[in-house]
Amino acid sequence: MAFLLFVACNQTNTKEAKTSDDTAQADPLPSWEEGKTKAAILTFVKQSAEEGSPNFIPIEDRIATFDNDGTLWSEKPAYFQLFFAIDRVKALAPEHPEWKDNQPFKAVLEDDMKTLSSYGEHGILEIVMATHAGNTLDEFEQIVKDWLATAKHPRFDRPYTDLVYQPMLELLDYLRANDFKTFIVSGGGIDFMRPWVENTYGIPKDQVVGSSIKTEFTIADGQAVIKKLPAIDFIDDKAGKPIGINKFIGRKPVFAAGNSDGDLQMLQWTDSSSYPSFQLYVHHTDAEREWAYDRESSVGRLDKGLEEAASNGWTVASMKDDWKLVYPFELEME
Amino acid sequence: MAFLLFVACNQTNTKEAKTSDDTAQADPLPSWEEGKTKAAILTFVKQSAEEGSPNFIPIEDRIATFDNDGTLWSEKPAYFQLFFAIDRVKALAPEHPEWKDNQPFKAVLEDDMKTLSSYGEHGILEIVMATHAGNTLDEFEQIVKDWLATAKHPRFDRPYTDLVYQPMLELLDYLRANDFKTFIVSGGGIDFMRPWVENTYGIPKDQVVGSSIKTEFTIADGQAVIKKLPAIDFIDDKAGKPIGINKFIGRKPVFAAGNSDGDLQMLQWTDSSSYPSFQLYVHHTDAEREWAYDRESSVGRLDKGLEEAASNGWTVASMKDDWKLVYPFELEME
Repeated sequence: MAFLLFVACNQTNTKEAKTSDDTAQADPLPSWEEGKTKAAILTFVKQSAEEGSPNFIPIEDRIATFDNDGTLWSEKPAYFQLFFAIDRVKALAPEHPEWKDNQPFKAVLEDDMKTLSSYGEHGILEIVMATHAGNTLDEFEQIVKDWLATAKHPRFDRPYTDLVYQPMLELLDYLRANDFKTFIVSGGGIDFMRPWVENTYGIPKDQVVGSSIKTEFTIADGQAVIKKLPAIDFIDDKAGKPIGINKFIGRKPVFAAGNSDGDLQMLQWTDSSSYPSFQLYVHHTDAEREWAYDRESSVGRLDKGLEEAASNGWTVASMKDDWKLVYPFELEME
Repeated sequence: MAFLLFVACNQTNTKEAKTSDDTAQADPLPSWEEGKTKAAILTFVKQSAEEGSPNFIPIEDRIATFDNDGTLWSEKPAYFQLFFAIDRVKALAPEHPEWKDNQPFKAVLEDDMKTLSSYGEHGILEIVMATHAGNTLDEFEQIVKDWLATAKHPRFDRPYTDLVYQPMLELLDYLRANDFKTFIVSGGGIDFMRPWVENTYGIPKDQVVGSSIKTEFTIADGQAVIKKLPAIDFIDDKAGKPIGINKFIGRKPVFAAGNSDGDLQMLQWTDSSSYPSFQLYVHHTDAEREWAYDRESSVGRLDKGLEEAASNGWTVASMKDDWKLVYPFELEME
């Protein structure tokens, strides 16, 4: 039996991270506080993987989708991809002397975040286009890797990839240990995420759904090249999320995790599964260890997703109450 | 060791078909004639999976992409998806009395293939739009499954899914047994392929790249629904193939198989890998068991891909000379 199983293992094809059998025996979610959130996750996953259970889900349908910004890693004081774009504007400024006089680039170069934010989404898009297009795929991947290796988060003075959530890493592992296929479904740029998500989350590049700009294939000097162009291809946010899920995955997820109104439609789509399904809403309630915010709490309203969570029976994870740890580096500090 | 391996196996996540260890010991490509084509495949795959080999490829980079029409199943006398569209026009005709007087629908309803083909690609696109849009995803999947369960190929009087190539099924299995992740990259409709490729080829739905029409997400009567719209989203053909590969897979393949000029850019893209790579060109040379044709042989020219194959050292599989069997059903007839 041992030899046969060994061969079978060699024939598997997944590039996703595995937990060891020791972990599977022990508590699979050690950074989650005991309580109804953790219990709900454990019950759902166990039943979905248990043959004969009325809630059993066939392996090929065990699709789990995760938002990234604010769900797998932090998103404050701004999306980390915006910090990347800002650093790129500064690095590219010598080649673009006109930026000194043109907004929103002028604001970026003068570290004037107030003026930058007055240009809203359109301004950010302009900066993203100017800094994410023009390179070949290989060049851009290297630029992202180099940035992650050197850039530091302003509050924690650590690499941005240190600010992933330990409880969510455990959840990804736990789902995979139960034959769920885990995907990222993010409004963030697909080419910004792919260079690092494999090492950080154990999620292969082909299991990343995200926003994208157009590309062009050419043969230059006898060499096949794909270049990134300054034009939007797909925005993977809000109603774009279920559309992106269908396009890239082709199956309705049975598990989805998000943290904002950008994730609402993904959670609604998952909730329409003919199988039992699980919706996890990460609520940022911990100003001390992370941040405390709702998208619209400043105007006295909760996220729509939080309102729907209550009426639809979705599970809300409160960072402050449900997570023993937020970041992996807290383990070193204990 | 046995227990640990058993647990590790349970934790794998792939939905792809596996060959048994017996097959791995025996000839993995029994339907391929001995010769330089088979030897080239065996050498490439063995070396890419052999640690310490100068041609070793890390598992996460073992990406193999396959065209579908003419590479994994037949495409004559016309793309099988066109037969599907034609049958759909006939089924939907009672709801569209205007089609009796409007081309190219009139030609379809009158089985006038000559007139239909005079409308060229534009006419086909019109028929595809009219027959592939308007339904929800679930409805369309069921329509495709019902069609495949009843429709018969005009020459062989068998279900279309019987006309897959036995040697290519073995090749898919062999690659997966060596930790290659196998993808379809087809000009065909992604929603037309996904309902059946999992059972037929052992390729999961999320490993299918294809052409698509736009979709719309709505909440109707409190239910989340995605509807297919009559507008082109993406054409996964020619230069669209490397673009689709990058969008969906995010990695350059090291193995690609095609059979026409629609696959040329995918083969060129794969050939630009920094790893050793393999390009397989399936040449239709067997009029007796399948069909014999080149795209431009009627005007005295080979496919560009066949010309490039010769100058670039790509491997050409001649159906007549390299394949002992074409279709799996020939096994029953022996």
